[in-house]
Amino acid sequence: MILYSYFRSSAAYRVRIAMHLKGLAPEYRAVHLVKDGGEQHAPAYRALNPQGRVPYLIDGQVQLGQSLAIIEYLEETHPLPPLLPRDAAGRARVRSIALAIAADIQPLQNLSTTRYLEERLGLPQEQRDAWIAHWVAVGLGALETQLGREPATGRYCHGDLPTLADCCLVPQMFAARRFGVDVANYPTLARIDAVCQELPAVAAAAPARQPDAS
Amino acid sequence: MILYSYFRSSAAYRVRIAMHLKGLAPEYRAVHLVKDGGEQHAPAYRALNPQGRVPYLIDGQVQLGQSLAIIEYLEETHPLPPLLPRDAAGRARVRSIALAIAADIQPLQNLSTTRYLEERLGLPQEQRDAWIAHWVAVGLGALETQLGREPATGRYCHGDLPTLADCCLVPQMFAARRFGVDVANYPTLARIDAVCQELPAVAAAAPARQPDAS
Repeated sequence: MILYSYFRSSAAYRVRIAMHLKGLAPEYRAVHLVKDGGEQHAPAYRALNPQGRVPYLIDGQVQLGQSLAIIEYLEETHPLPPLLPRDAAGRARVRSIALAIAADIQPLQNLSTTRYLEERLGLPQEQRDAWIAHWVAVGLGALETQLGREPATGRYCHGDLPTLADCCLVPQMFAARRFGVDVANYPTLARIDAVCQELPAVAAAAPARQPDAS
Repeated sequence: MILYSYFRSSAAYRVRIAMHLKGLAPEYRAVHLVKDGGEQHAPAYRALNPQGRVPYLIDGQVQLGQSLAIIEYLEETHPLPPLLPRDAAGRARVRSIALAIAADIQPLQNLSTTRYLEERLGLPQEQRDAWIAHWVAVGLGALETQLGREPATGRYCHGDLPTLADCCLVPQMFAARRFGVDVANYPTLARIDAVCQELPAVAAAAPARQPDAS
């Protein structure tokens, strides 16, 4: 297996957590999203992945983008340990939490979006920071309310084992801290993030531990 | 089953297509995303769904947001007709196409995002239109390249039966046309969209056919 990744990409970080939790050790290929305008836009990478994003997985004949699709694929091909609960309601809840991060927060804070704000709209740093702070606060606030009140929340986002939802939460909390958001406003999420960080698999997936960290 | 929906919401439209394809007829509850600043922000709706978005599904004890999580839940609880292929590689491909729309395009064109551009950043209509056109062009362009070259593309996004990917493509093409994007630039996607529109289930899910259409 080959994983195209960038150490600081939230989406790649999700997949790295899932792979470490499942004991998978792919060949790591770094795609630098910033250097020289972004290696993801280079013709050779675009020929591989027309979406020009990371993560991207190659597993034999399978070539696959989109972090949640990759993790679901790993879940089906390497079921143990499971990253989704067994019951349909639980699986739905985990996927819903994951998507609340992957579809509602992360697209608005990611590099291609903030680059548009800077380069095409000419927004100063202050307005770009306010943009990110807004979407992170809206998204994490809703998630805090939901996880804080639902009895299915346990030691982790769902019950007492890490799931796909935690694979998404940890990188989102990392990003929030990086953008200067005070995560103490989200005590349930901060507690779960801290519990996740105790897992060696989660620690091993951290941006600073990747070969392309700088 | 109760589905909270808004006729023009891309995400609710996805779920409506999936439900019609599976022959499910939920009670339809309209949440007007524009009127009076948006009914999704009203305390009663926020109490139900802290994310303040549609779609939202109630099925017995299960309460669930996020369109792709809802469709996966329907797939597990009402497996026929299937909206995912049987093989792991095919399932992964379908999910990847769905997410390329749901996580990479739609969050940037949706109402909460464009409202921020207008109300907080004071961008004129022309710059808001250019923003939407940019993200739709980037996203659909990548998808056109992918679907155009992959042999797994068939009559529909994946093979000759409609899947979760088509549930996402149809609303995205509807949104693109609504925003004035020339979909003829994406011949593979436009062809698949036209084939989908021939299905009575897809036609029945169209915004104009919903009780809250205006």
